[in-house]
Amino acid sequence: MTDSAFQDYYPDEFSHCYGCGRLNAHGLQLKSHWEGDESVALFQPEEKHMAVPGFVYGGLIASLIDCHCTGTAAAAAYREQGRAMDTEPGLRFVTASLHVDYLAPTPLASQLEVRGIVTEITPKKVVVDARVMADGKVCAKGRVVAVPLPKSMALKITGKK
Amino acid sequence: MTDSAFQDYYPDEFSHCYGCGRLNAHGLQLKSHWEGDESVALFQPEEKHMAVPGFVYGGLIASLIDCHCTGTAAAAAYREQGRAMDTEPGLRFVTASLHVDYLAPTPLASQLEVRGIVTEITPKKVVVDARVMADGKVCAKGRVVAVPLPKSMALKITGKK
Repeated sequence: MTDSAFQDYYPDEFSHCYGCGRLNAHGLQLKSHWEGDESVALFQPEEKHMAVPGFVYGGLIASLIDCHCTGTAAAAAYREQGRAMDTEPGLRFVTASLHVDYLAPTPLASQLEVRGIVTEITPKKVVVDARVMADGKVCAKGRVVAVPLPKSMALKITGKK
Repeated sequence: MTDSAFQDYYPDEFSHCYGCGRLNAHGLQLKSHWEGDESVALFQPEEKHMAVPGFVYGGLIASLIDCHCTGTAAAAAYREQGRAMDTEPGLRFVTASLHVDYLAPTPLASQLEVRGIVTEITPKKVVVDARVMADGKVCAKGRVVAVPLPKSMALKITGKK
């Protein structure tokens, strides 16, 4: 893994996300890295993230997959253009669709490993397949279709054209 | 709407979920009710639930759809059997799959309305379609395939056969 996470390169105005924003003190602060052609994020659930005692609630799994995959989409788009993530123009992605298959109860006590792989990349969308593992076992699989942030929304957020 | 929410009928050992458990002090405490053939839940996002300033992060939408739909699945299963939700044997559902299409940015300041409709119900699964609305506009649509909680897991949680 490299030292800096994808999310560390997000400009401040894009770093407030509950799932992955480094400036959201109450959030999950997910950090994703390349490991060869796969992206990886590690996350330790807290006691409050339970569904039933001992197991993680489904919304957390969905959140981890969502943020890990949109981060992976951005990183993949920079990589496709042969640019580092701290170069301009910035590339930001939002989720068009999210699918999660819950395969096995996910333990609350274990560190979770989220792995993503880009299965399609075009100027209009990036598709990322993900799996969430605990203790080496796949507990959930997911797919995110990420699309570039609409310019109208980017303008609202940054004030820049 | 009736006074009691679906989640108010969950036994204590099933009331710790971050998304909808009445005993999870840190969680979202989602409450779902019947309104005719549709189920409805209202939720006011907090500032911390942002994706970018002014808009809700995707994982919250996924969490609301997930918990609202598994609650609706349980309520629908009782209704199918002509029983009230406080009668035995208890019926609990878990998510087999979750799909969310994000249609428009979801405002953080508005109260969100999650509406569910049961599109398939068999002894093996309940399928619930959902939409999330803000200010009367549909921001996301989802589908949950809910399945009865496996007996092995119920036994672990309740200690009862």
